[in-house]
Amino acid sequence: MQALVFDGKQPAIHPSVPEVVPKPGEALIRPLRMGVCATDLEICKGYMGFKGVLGHEFVGVVERVVGKTGKELVGKRVVGSINCVCGKCDMCRGGLPEHCRDRTVLGIAGRDGCFAQQFALPVRNLLEVPAGLDDDHAVFTEPLAAAFQVLRQLTIEGRPYITVLGDGRLGLLCAQVMTQLNATVRCVGKHPEKLALCEKWGVKHRLLDDVGLRQDQDIVVDCTGSADGLRVAMQMVRPRGKIVLKTTVAPAPGSQSHGVDLSPLVIHEIQVIGSRCGPFDEALRAMSVGKIDVLSLISRRMKLAEGVEALKTANQPGVIKVLLEP
Amino acid sequence: MQALVFDGKQPAIHPSVPEVVPKPGEALIRPLRMGVCATDLEICKGYMGFKGVLGHEFVGVVERVVGKTGKELVGKRVVGSINCVCGKCDMCRGGLPEHCRDRTVLGIAGRDGCFAQQFALPVRNLLEVPAGLDDDHAVFTEPLAAAFQVLRQLTIEGRPYITVLGDGRLGLLCAQVMTQLNATVRCVGKHPEKLALCEKWGVKHRLLDDVGLRQDQDIVVDCTGSADGLRVAMQMVRPRGKIVLKTTVAPAPGSQSHGVDLSPLVIHEIQVIGSRCGPFDEALRAMSVGKIDVLSLISRRMKLAEGVEALKTANQPGVIKVLLEP
Repeated sequence: MQALVFDGKQPAIHPSVPEVVPKPGEALIRPLRMGVCATDLEICKGYMGFKGVLGHEFVGVVERVVGKTGKELVGKRVVGSINCVCGKCDMCRGGLPEHCRDRTVLGIAGRDGCFAQQFALPVRNLLEVPAGLDDDHAVFTEPLAAAFQVLRQLTIEGRPYITVLGDGRLGLLCAQVMTQLNATVRCVGKHPEKLALCEKWGVKHRLLDDVGLRQDQDIVVDCTGSADGLRVAMQMVRPRGKIVLKTTVAPAPGSQSHGVDLSPLVIHEIQVIGSRCGPFDEALRAMSVGKIDVLSLISRRMKLAEGVEALKTANQPGVIKVLLEP
Repeated sequence: MQALVFDGKQPAIHPSVPEVVPKPGEALIRPLRMGVCATDLEICKGYMGFKGVLGHEFVGVVERVVGKTGKELVGKRVVGSINCVCGKCDMCRGGLPEHCRDRTVLGIAGRDGCFAQQFALPVRNLLEVPAGLDDDHAVFTEPLAAAFQVLRQLTIEGRPYITVLGDGRLGLLCAQVMTQLNATVRCVGKHPEKLALCEKWGVKHRLLDDVGLRQDQDIVVDCTGSADGLRVAMQMVRPRGKIVLKTTVAPAPGSQSHGVDLSPLVIHEIQVIGSRCGPFDEALRAMSVGKIDVLSLISRRMKLAEGVEALKTANQPGVIKVLLEP
């Protein structure tokens, strides 16, 4: 079958990767839509040291299930959590399976991803997509869930000043999610054409160059996807404020470093909260009731066969979301 | 008067610095004991860009007060908060004066320090030392308060696993403070002779080389004073755990960086809590009732005139606290 593979050096379309053989408890899935994420681009720079089939954002159809449970999903449209867990370690038993000690992660760690004609995921990872929600929405479930995770990690009272830093894929989703709070949220970025979407949604927005770095925000969510994001966030957040860190980047070649002086964290007693995957059910629900506009984020639709070009496109300024189709 | 001055290049004893003239609201203080802190050593490497008289740990006698309030302190032994605040900005009005936007900090930012025959601090910064507490204890009030600050920033329930990382001045104080909790605390360091003090106090301790970096600690308090401390702490703390960051270091020459890959914070959803100055009253109280052993931390006593040598001594392996006397 066809798949977009990263071999440790560069991504390439392989025309005849061996067919996927799902294990007991797993489903074989045929993707209908796939989304290109900043993490895919970082992996191609060496992040996580991953080699294999790329991709972790998808909506697809279950073709086959191995084992007794999940037969009812065959033929259904599904989305799925990307963390495949052991169910036995201290994290799994302690109710934090997404932090399983022995996990594999779809297209990110130890498991081939979804940029292929078929791929496998455990049945228990899957959620059926409501009939009313089309593929173009459903493919955004994973990144939108990551945006909702920010809300689960914060206790927000009153109307704190919140800046979502970054106007890319994740930033624009976070800005929409955060604006639903009783809070003063603004999205700060570098791209007028992306921030124009905030205008449409009624979300406050500013260009980074027009914003004073005044250490006056209660909460800054770093969705820049840039090693420099934390440095800027530290200049925006008030003393004793909080920075939610969404950015993961590959260290610069030959370096173990992100080049950030961390002493402001101590001097201003700032709290940094790392934030990764989130609740798929909340994301599906929010899209089902029309609370989140994802369609405006779609910049390009390309074929899986154009996968290498799609990665390049996703990296271009002005491009928000690139979707892949089989 | 005599003072230990950092001119931006190197520290030196100046025999005839101009006499200090306290402003209205300030007290003129004659130090009885002074403590050398890791921050003093970092300042001499360029941290904070400070130039002037060094030093911020002291116990002293009030010689004179300018203004109406605080006359009762004249002749009394005092310790004092190092943050000198405006009382007018949003932080001061909001109950976080230690984060005053316009603050000066004794011997660290915008204000000459206490390694001198005399120095000035606002009267409202001063706390009288209880009669039963001798100078050798009182001089530890500032660093011990910084250790107590950790407790104010954490909500601790049950018996979480806590590692105090670093067996230096601050680490050994933090380990004593944290052990008073209903928690499983261990101090992890590199120096057997320093960790031997933990034995004496009934505090668990391990050598760093003997400890598995297993991501199993609920809380890690980084008191290493080393840019590498955060990297080690990220390998010790469990997913969704907390790192209290006490370390401030000057970036390496020619670099803005601390050389740490921060993506583990995101992947494991770790929380980092910057922590600086703390409650002087709690520190004085804990020492008054004999809860904290500070005398065992005193490695050397030197004269102010030997200040340059004292800084070098404080930097030597095996040395914990160096005290200065006038």
